[in-house]
Amino acid sequence: MHYLLGEFLGSLFLILFGGGVVAGVVLKGSKSYMAGWMVIATGWAFAVMIGVFVASSTGSTQADINPAVTLAKLFLGIYYSPVQVIERMAVQFLGCFTGAVLVWLAYLPHWRITDDKEAKLNVFSTTPAIDHKIGNLLTEIIGTFALIFGIGAIVNFAHGHTYESLVPYFVGMLVWGIGLSLGGPTGYAINPARDLGPRIAHALLPIAGKGSSRWQYAWIPVIGPCIGASIGAVFCHLLL
Amino acid sequence: MHYLLGEFLGSLFLILFGGGVVAGVVLKGSKSYMAGWMVIATGWAFAVMIGVFVASSTGSTQADINPAVTLAKLFLGIYYSPVQVIERMAVQFLGCFTGAVLVWLAYLPHWRITDDKEAKLNVFSTTPAIDHKIGNLLTEIIGTFALIFGIGAIVNFAHGHTYESLVPYFVGMLVWGIGLSLGGPTGYAINPARDLGPRIAHALLPIAGKGSSRWQYAWIPVIGPCIGASIGAVFCHLLL
Amino acid sequence: MHYLLGEFLGSLFLILFGGGVVAGVVLKGSKSYMAGWMVIATGWAFAVMIGVFVASSTGSTQADINPAVTLAKLFLGIYYSPVQVIERMAVQFLGCFTGAVLVWLAYLPHWRITDDKEAKLNVFSTTPAIDHKIGNLLTEIIGTFALIFGIGAIVNFAHGHTYESLVPYFVGMLVWGIGLSLGGPTGYAINPARDLGPRIAHALLPIAGKGSSRWQYAWIPVIGPCIGASIGAVFCHLLL
Amino acid sequence: MHYLLGEFLGSLFLILFGGGVVAGVVLKGSKSYMAGWMVIATGWAFAVMIGVFVASSTGSTQADINPAVTLAKLFLGIYYSPVQVIERMAVQFLGCFTGAVLVWLAYLPHWRITDDKEAKLNVFSTTPAIDHKIGNLLTEIIGTFALIFGIGAIVNFAHGHTYESLVPYFVGMLVWGIGLSLGGPTGYAINPARDLGPRIAHALLPIAGKGSSRWQYAWIPVIGPCIGASIGAVFCHLLL
Repeated sequence: MHYLLGEFLGSLFLILFGGGVVAGVVLKGSKSYMAGWMVIATGWAFAVMIGVFVASSTGSTQADINPAVTLAKLFLGIYYSPVQVIERMAVQFLGCFTGAVLVWLAYLPHWRITDDKEAKLNVFSTTPAIDHKIGNLLTEIIGTFALIFGIGAIVNFAHGHTYESLVPYFVGMLVWGIGLSLGGPTGYAINPARDLGPRIAHALLPIAGKGSSRWQYAWIPVIGPCIGASIGAVFCHLLL
Repeated sequence: MHYLLGEFLGSLFLILFGGGVVAGVVLKGSKSYMAGWMVIATGWAFAVMIGVFVASSTGSTQADINPAVTLAKLFLGIYYSPVQVIERMAVQFLGCFTGAVLVWLAYLPHWRITDDKEAKLNVFSTTPAIDHKIGNLLTEIIGTFALIFGIGAIVNFAHGHTYESLVPYFVGMLVWGIGLSLGGPTGYAINPARDLGPRIAHALLPIAGKGSSRWQYAWIPVIGPCIGASIGAVFCHLLL
Repeated sequence: MHYLLGEFLGSLFLILFGGGVVAGVVLKGSKSYMAGWMVIATGWAFAVMIGVFVASSTGSTQADINPAVTLAKLFLGIYYSPVQVIERMAVQFLGCFTGAVLVWLAYLPHWRITDDKEAKLNVFSTTPAIDHKIGNLLTEIIGTFALIFGIGAIVNFAHGHTYESLVPYFVGMLVWGIGLSLGGPTGYAINPARDLGPRIAHALLPIAGKGSSRWQYAWIPVIGPCIGASIGAVFCHLLL
Repeated sequence: MHYLLGEFLGSLFLILFGGGVVAGVVLKGSKSYMAGWMVIATGWAFAVMIGVFVASSTGSTQADINPAVTLAKLFLGIYYSPVQVIERMAVQFLGCFTGAVLVWLAYLPHWRITDDKEAKLNVFSTTPAIDHKIGNLLTEIIGTFALIFGIGAIVNFAHGHTYESLVPYFVGMLVWGIGLSLGGPTGYAINPARDLGPRIAHALLPIAGKGSSRWQYAWIPVIGPCIGASIGAVFCHLLL
């Protein structure tokens, strides 16, 4: 199939699982209510792994499902057509948006009984633990740098050992690690589409008792990952 | 051995481990009492992985251990004989029933001291966190769709990379993800035999202080997975 | 090296990690104090995986590190010399005993400040959640049956797909599952040497403030696994 | 690239993830605050796995990222040039130091609001649960022995089965096990550079409201791992 379809479906699965795990932990009445950070980080790890499997097998051999990854590949010369890059990013946002709609449906009776408005937003998008522009930006930059350079290292290692088929699994483990280790301050967007697409869904969907979509924060999980990905691409170019 | 034996034993192991982990968490006195959702989702992940290993190595190369998976394969033309499909589904139910009997025995002294009747039912079958027919059905449809399309993506990816032997492991990880991310509202049956077989066991076994088997809910974890599997099969057919 | 050395060292590592994780969770002052069942089951999973790696690479290609596994292999005709079987079992006990001594040393300052005498015994040996001879025996039989038949299925599957080198990993995952799902009632000995060897260590070592070694229970985690392994061997013989 | 660069970057990633996971759990306001030992041990497991991937793919085929490992390899004759060994150790310390600086930045707004001064030190370096020189030393010796001999067993097993490319993953699992099972008494440094490098960073960085760097304890997580690695090297030499 066409690579744009793969990016769309992979991004959709990313948010269906990633948004879903947060919904389970923060929405009242859910059987996984208050199940803790281990559940969230593990859920996002498999969200990425499954998203990459889906994207890969439905047409996108690159399987970025993250504009920050796509951006890094542009800088690394893996992509050269700006149109292809923009198309790819656009369907990533669209896939994340659609995944968020599915999460809303999968947890349909739980929105009304949940009072915490920020919790409900967190199913869709990240918010900082402490509002601190420089600090929040730094966290997203460092987290995305670790993602990009980590993927580079895994792919490089896998090529050398002909283990390319385990790359989606190891990238999932990498994201498991990023969530556990660097997720505390900002909830680790490390992916502009993962944050902005569902934030738009949060704004548009008739979610029972929803609060602000916090647009004043929305630029940080977009700009931070782009900066981190750029630095990561430079390091990949120089060191791998 | 015969493929029906494989389906029977694989389904038995699925419930022995899957029902067992719930028993450990909800039955009073158990050393894993109240151990949380991470334990439950992880236990079900290995339940599926081991069930597939057992089914595969005792005769069922298909190793469905789930009528929803069998149904999807019928729609995809992997099976064409209706008799074979019905036989396969029947032994899946029988295997799940038998696994539930073993769980009852493995936790024998714990039933009497547990007061919570719904908890005891949950060892066998799912109940919704919030009673909401449309919402519960939607959750089971989305969860089973994710299972079927996820398996399709994993198998497709594995074929392309000659990693077929890791498929049971990755399917286990997929179910880990579904449990963490989409299990909150209904306890993720995503398998009619997993829910109905043990529900019959719950009704028949002399469980100390048991309550209602909640038959009025029983159709949702049967119909929901069948709808989800049908949609999943359509997507697999069109996109993989 | 000689296979007895491999069995000794593998069993030693099994208990160093397996006893160690319990010590961390139940001994006062430990940084993992009260960390829960997920920690215990995960710790035992890696204990088995590492034990098998150590046994395999130091001379025991069979890498049983469990008299129940050795017994099953005797019934399956993999071993035929009774002397070899008894030697193998003897060093498994010795290895488990030695591993328990190392655990005692690794947690040296924590014994004195821990009041709970049963908790201290549990670092070494299992005790039932509820005293119930038939029930406890049944749990150990079912758990060990699942271990033996599960190993059989994994090995059989791996042979068919030339993935033999992942067997230690998958056996670790199997034990992860057994711990999560069937560990609640008795603490899952599923291995006579794992329980009796360290129980002797508990009786002999000068553990600060130790209580009874509960010898009246000691036969259940020995006899139960032997029965479970025998049933498992019959099923492996007939079905794999 | 040069092997020293690989050791530097691998050690940096080790601490970025390893220090990061502790920061998330102990610093107030973090989304993973108080998330427990499972999170910490899992985070360190992926820290090691990713550190090895990074070191391997940026020039260090040996990928020690731990002076104790380097020391063991010197004793085993894998290295023979003392200068190379000292250089390698020096950049490991430097990498760990730099990783600790990044952790400080990633959690920038959380230092000021955290009162617990020992918690803040623990993001950087280990402290004992109970002050007990002999006991603490023993724990670090046993833990590092298990690390070195465990790596030896994994590498040996992998060579025999041509699975060398999974070694970083299995070493990560080994460290997961060491953390769960032997981390309780001292927080498992098992790596002199992992402890001393970040301790220097703790002393030098302008961390808001920091307390003592506890230099009187600093020798134990350096000397303990060196002794454990030496014993491990002897066992590897004799038994593998």
